[in-house]
Amino acid sequence: MEFVITLNRGSSLPLYRQICEELRRLILSGYLLPGQRIPSSRALAKSCKVSRATVNLSYEELLSEGYLKSSHGAGTFVNDQIPKTFIQSTDPTHQLTQAKQIKLSKYGTHIAKSKPFRPIEQHLPINFLYRQPAFDQLSLQQWGRLLVHHCQFNLKLLDYGNDLLGYRELRKAISLHLTQSRGLRCEADQVLIVNGSQQALDLVTRILCDSGDWVGMENPGYLNAHHTFLAQGSRVLPVPVDESGIVIEHLLGFTNAKLRFVYVTPSHQFPSGRVMSLSRRLELLSWAQSSGAMIIEDDYDSAYSYGNQSIPPLQELDKSGAVIYIGTFSKELFPALQIGYLVLPKHLVNVFANAKCLTDLQSPLLEQQVLTDFINEGHLERHIKRIRNLYYQRRQTLVQALSMYLGECATILDENAGMHLMVHLQTSLNDEEIIHRASQVGVGLISAAQNYSNASYEGKFIIGYTDLTVQQIQEGIYKLAKVLKEPTTYTDIFRYSVDLQESACSCKK
Amino acid sequence: MEFVITLNRGSSLPLYRQICEELRRLILSGYLLPGQRIPSSRALAKSCKVSRATVNLSYEELLSEGYLKSSHGAGTFVNDQIPKTFIQSTDPTHQLTQAKQIKLSKYGTHIAKSKPFRPIEQHLPINFLYRQPAFDQLSLQQWGRLLVHHCQFNLKLLDYGNDLLGYRELRKAISLHLTQSRGLRCEADQVLIVNGSQQALDLVTRILCDSGDWVGMENPGYLNAHHTFLAQGSRVLPVPVDESGIVIEHLLGFTNAKLRFVYVTPSHQFPSGRVMSLSRRLELLSWAQSSGAMIIEDDYDSAYSYGNQSIPPLQELDKSGAVIYIGTFSKELFPALQIGYLVLPKHLVNVFANAKCLTDLQSPLLEQQVLTDFINEGHLERHIKRIRNLYYQRRQTLVQALSMYLGECATILDENAGMHLMVHLQTSLNDEEIIHRASQVGVGLISAAQNYSNASYEGKFIIGYTDLTVQQIQEGIYKLAKVLKEPTTYTDIFRYSVDLQESACSCKK
Repeated sequence: MEFVITLNRGSSLPLYRQICEELRRLILSGYLLPGQRIPSSRALAKSCKVSRATVNLSYEELLSEGYLKSSHGAGTFVNDQIPKTFIQSTDPTHQLTQAKQIKLSKYGTHIAKSKPFRPIEQHLPINFLYRQPAFDQLSLQQWGRLLVHHCQFNLKLLDYGNDLLGYRELRKAISLHLTQSRGLRCEADQVLIVNGSQQALDLVTRILCDSGDWVGMENPGYLNAHHTFLAQGSRVLPVPVDESGIVIEHLLGFTNAKLRFVYVTPSHQFPSGRVMSLSRRLELLSWAQSSGAMIIEDDYDSAYSYGNQSIPPLQELDKSGAVIYIGTFSKELFPALQIGYLVLPKHLVNVFANAKCLTDLQSPLLEQQVLTDFINEGHLERHIKRIRNLYYQRRQTLVQALSMYLGECATILDENAGMHLMVHLQTSLNDEEIIHRASQVGVGLISAAQNYSNASYEGKFIIGYTDLTVQQIQEGIYKLAKVLKEPTTYTDIFRYSVDLQESACSCKK
Repeated sequence: MEFVITLNRGSSLPLYRQICEELRRLILSGYLLPGQRIPSSRALAKSCKVSRATVNLSYEELLSEGYLKSSHGAGTFVNDQIPKTFIQSTDPTHQLTQAKQIKLSKYGTHIAKSKPFRPIEQHLPINFLYRQPAFDQLSLQQWGRLLVHHCQFNLKLLDYGNDLLGYRELRKAISLHLTQSRGLRCEADQVLIVNGSQQALDLVTRILCDSGDWVGMENPGYLNAHHTFLAQGSRVLPVPVDESGIVIEHLLGFTNAKLRFVYVTPSHQFPSGRVMSLSRRLELLSWAQSSGAMIIEDDYDSAYSYGNQSIPPLQELDKSGAVIYIGTFSKELFPALQIGYLVLPKHLVNVFANAKCLTDLQSPLLEQQVLTDFINEGHLERHIKRIRNLYYQRRQTLVQALSMYLGECATILDENAGMHLMVHLQTSLNDEEIIHRASQVGVGLISAAQNYSNASYEGKFIIGYTDLTVQQIQEGIYKLAKVLKEPTTYTDIFRYSVDLQESACSCKK
């Protein structure tokens, strides 16, 4: 066994006494075990940079004290006769003690009690999840080419970034991209690069909310935002949503002393799918101006609007610096990329940049560089155009299939946008039973019930379609319709698949 | 101009009245400007999916009310005679008002007042920065090859990860890597992947500390840790460091009710560079066990130990679940990668995983996969071995150059480890003057004064050497020595460079 004893050469205590003390401590703490061989005096002298005579002096003292024993020719050992009570216990019962003692913060206590925040995903053949982009449409060769290019020819960019807001060329590209695709004008220095929209939400909450403060959010709304607000100790005011978006009447009377911000998803309300009307947007901004509260605009899947309408984002309509805009590339490219951004009012840029730095220094740089080129070389725009058409086709298929197989049992609630739609299924079954029956025939569904602040919203489902083929969508809805109408048996399932082949042709685009 | 008015078809209010209300609101809010042309009744009818007659009815009402005016043949316009006071002001003075109203959280208020947290880096020819790995030694072709491989053949891995702790194969690889390189045994399910050690620090602080709680840290210590603790509202107890590491006497008497955790850098104390002795480690653990406080072990540059000694990490010595271990690949590979990890006591895994999920969902996945292969294929080990030798050589050069050019004016404080060393320069000059003179001859230096809790530590400098060549190190210290001895003039600088060429040979390895 090799070890080093650190000596304090400025101390008034002689070196041999220091060695004695250290060895006693190592033995009593249980690090050196009874019967264990210790280094030869030559070896210890060398590693401690003292003379061998000094070490010999120490060993002699410890031998005389009974800490060590010597076996002629075999070396020096820790005395195996040292009473066990001398030796500090490190038995496993301590682990339990420590675990019980640990005091978590309020934040820690809250999230320790929570269930994991991601939905448990069943691996079913046809899964109507609402957040999967069609990865297979991405030009990964381009992405790979850019990755290699940057990691081979840009050595300095492997370093820490020197820009607290994120890679500047990316911020410029995003600013331009937002103007062209969303009519949102901002300067590159209002853009802060973060790890996806979740980090944006977390930063906003930490910076604007103390424990006990109120925040408003749409009801129904985005579950992870709700969790984020609660973890920070905020109290959440659920604000109803109607055809035009969040209902402002419920916000009147609140000032920023009471309500620090309102979190909204105007481009495609999550999960109802509705688009906030222009006048509702103006009304919300007017309320924010008079109340002093901030508006957090989460534009998570705004790239996919299939109608002609193009309503400016709140951030663009706002003249008062009341809007923080959150964008992400998870829906436009792929989620594992984990690059999102905030567009901030100028007076908040500094505090957000500092917070990002203390949170995780910076987002990984290599993929920021790749994304910059991907945008600037036009790949992103072409990619979005291509998948927007594809998603539109898949969405139309879903709408037709719902109408054909479920008829009046299914009411689609949302507008012509986004990567999912919300459907109200009118049956005698509760949500759990619907999900169970669907899974029996290999179809995955997600209920919207958990997105409501109260539990009385049975029958609403968030149906994603973006990563399913036209055939899968038809088959999935067909199977769903069958199991909703009658109890399922395995014989039924076989019959359905025969039925399906016959009926599939009739609704193919 | 195109826009859509959202109508509520379930409302008792007739559609034409709804259109009137919306248009009035758009005009009064200033979105439609006086004199602006509005869509033709045909266009609006189409976009709102109502009959043209309905729109005509609305327009007639608004014309009669004076909101609109019609110019025969030219279209319909917003009346430019509407009193400006009717129209909601959106002038820029509001921006100021809103900025003043915004109330930040305690966290936000603290960091808004702070200066940016990264040192301002001067671009000087020879910069003794303390955190730059030698990027040019990294096998970037391997890295690039793995990047391309994963992003082309692993489509499903572009998705959201399904593991709250991070990519499981990487966690297994890290667990094995830690056993082999650090003698640290842990299970893959104790490892949480985070964005570099800064995110680890932030998570630890949020989960263990409420505002007002005390935490201990080494004095001198790591500045960003200090900022992180303060931003969370913690009070920081600076604990002195001696030759063996943090001095336990200063912790005695504190329990976890008073002191939530102690943050230490045992492998290579930052910035003094000392290695915590084995017995001090055991003493610290014993204190933690009795006090109930946690120990946060930041092992930031442990890969680079140049002596024979290999003291087990606190995490390995600990039997009571009191240690949270922080590791990073920023120093072993490259900082832009931004992958770090925590090794957690088992009873804290769940709360940290939830916190990571709410903070930013997950760390980017593609580079987690690449890193996994890079470790498993042995590239990491080979890379570390290669640059450890290189750093050793550069370190020796630095030590020799300090001794040769500065002699007794320079005292090296630390042990034989890490990526920097700390030097005490005994001159009549203050730190600012030393830095200024050095920069005049193109040499960058960082004072350690800001790493001390009190300001009386002049003359200590953190000198990094890992990204400088042997020649640069010699030249840098030579130039430093010259300017410390006499006032600098430009003539002097020319003279030095002649001197240098003569003397460089004598200290070349």
